[in-house]
Amino acid sequence: MSLKLTILGCHSATPRVNANPTAQLLEIKNHSFLIDCGEGTQVQLRKYNVKFSKIKHVFISHLHGDHFYGLIGLISTFRLLNREAELHIYAPKGLKEIITLQLKASNSWTQYPLLFHELCSKKSELIFEDKKVEVHTIPLDHRIYTNGFLFKEKLGERKLNMGAICKIPEIKICDYQNLKIGRDFVLQNGTILQNKTLTLNPEKPISYAFCSDTSYYPEIIPTIKNVNCLYHETTFLEDRADLATKTKHATAQQAASIAKQAKVKKLIIGHYSGRYKNIEGFKTESKIIFKNTQLAETGKVFKIE
Amino acid sequence: MSLKLTILGCHSATPRVNANPTAQLLEIKNHSFLIDCGEGTQVQLRKYNVKFSKIKHVFISHLHGDHFYGLIGLISTFRLLNREAELHIYAPKGLKEIITLQLKASNSWTQYPLLFHELCSKKSELIFEDKKVEVHTIPLDHRIYTNGFLFKEKLGERKLNMGAICKIPEIKICDYQNLKIGRDFVLQNGTILQNKTLTLNPEKPISYAFCSDTSYYPEIIPTIKNVNCLYHETTFLEDRADLATKTKHATAQQAASIAKQAKVKKLIIGHYSGRYKNIEGFKTESKIIFKNTQLAETGKVFKIE
Repeated sequence: MSLKLTILGCHSATPRVNANPTAQLLEIKNHSFLIDCGEGTQVQLRKYNVKFSKIKHVFISHLHGDHFYGLIGLISTFRLLNREAELHIYAPKGLKEIITLQLKASNSWTQYPLLFHELCSKKSELIFEDKKVEVHTIPLDHRIYTNGFLFKEKLGERKLNMGAICKIPEIKICDYQNLKIGRDFVLQNGTILQNKTLTLNPEKPISYAFCSDTSYYPEIIPTIKNVNCLYHETTFLEDRADLATKTKHATAQQAASIAKQAKVKKLIIGHYSGRYKNIEGFKTESKIIFKNTQLAETGKVFKIE
Repeated sequence: MSLKLTILGCHSATPRVNANPTAQLLEIKNHSFLIDCGEGTQVQLRKYNVKFSKIKHVFISHLHGDHFYGLIGLISTFRLLNREAELHIYAPKGLKEIITLQLKASNSWTQYPLLFHELCSKKSELIFEDKKVEVHTIPLDHRIYTNGFLFKEKLGERKLNMGAICKIPEIKICDYQNLKIGRDFVLQNGTILQNKTLTLNPEKPISYAFCSDTSYYPEIIPTIKNVNCLYHETTFLEDRADLATKTKHATAQQAASIAKQAKVKKLIIGHYSGRYKNIEGFKTESKIIFKNTQLAETGKVFKIE
């Protein structure tokens, strides 16, 4: 299995022609999680043929415009499309007031349940969980309260080793579930067959950490340790490390250093400042420290395995 | 002289790929007036090479999202571009609270003066005036409080008839201003030369009326009478007159009827519902009643003469 990450926008600050602000779609275990929602995200979703009805959870990192100005439009469009399903929004405290004030001004309440989960903790916390997936916040260091998000598959059930099971006629279909959850099998004569002789290890759970925006902040390393893929912002190159420090952003070198220390398997970088006409420099700078670096580009799809 | 109207978006409800919500730029007597500002307007302004610094006045018709969701992003971008000039926003009461709440949440106040002129009158009122231009509201009939805007050049000064003036040596350059404002010239021997023998009529002032969104509302006719150009919304064709009535929008036929009754010189229609794949039908329907009808299309530039 793998996760599918679609980059809907990966540029910082102001939207421009062919430079969309931050938004990503993460497909994980039948969920389509929308991560950040800069202005124009709904058009990007259409452009890349994302079914609007599949989006049930939106995660907003912080309340700078390039990360959430597209949300009110998306919420309104869902209303116009007669959506009925719940929409959950995980975002810093304050967003609910901003959205509801605008819905009130237009006298256009959503006919579907719009559920806000407002965040204010400065410690990593579990904010979503079902049988197969969990999502934790990754508190970041930016000019205003900001979280990244850690998306983790849960360890699945063990897989039946049918080759081994078929040789034991006493094992019936109704026993399979117990085997999947790791129980041993006891034969009628009292012999115990160890679970690991009848099942195979489950697939390794996959994890994705989204970190934007933040200064160089090694405090996140324990939370993102060993993830399959880290998205880390790199607004600047080292040539403007001064600006990165001042605006609490990171350089490509710093993102790479975080990836290396956290021993992640893959690093995707993005949130490029408009001052760089060519983004290849970000990759070059990052790869010196962390080889498996890839550039986020609008419309690019990453398989995370 | 002429006015220049650039259509930045002319579709209703939800922004789609190649279907931008309402926004227009009106260039009149050295002003660049932005009229409505749906999501994505700042990208449209860039696309059509509009200098951001030229925009000093924004007119918002009403607080439905397809007419103002792009404004907060534009205001933020102006901030990031280190704008210093004042920005005046004419909009229904409520917009100031929406904008300031978002600026507060991002801890990003504008360094330039952001001046709101909140509207609540149900009668047409003068909301902007300088030596050459005036802007009046056109109260409309929509689901929430909505204004159109009437942009009018003022009658300019009379033009010097140099052929006639040259023949009168007593008239010096320092007399020209008095002639321009219509005064007669008195020769030293007491003879009065009538102003009209020394000057020509000023150019006829040009006017543009923007009416979106509204039901069929003949009450606007006295306000927009004889304008050079009327933009009137036509969300629907007559085949869905029922929906037009229900949602307080107009059909192409109704817009044409308003144009005819108001004896305007040109009608531009727009704000098309997404249900119509081909917008030609709007023109066909309107032209039956009002021949000089033109379709608004994204990126189209109209000269209003």
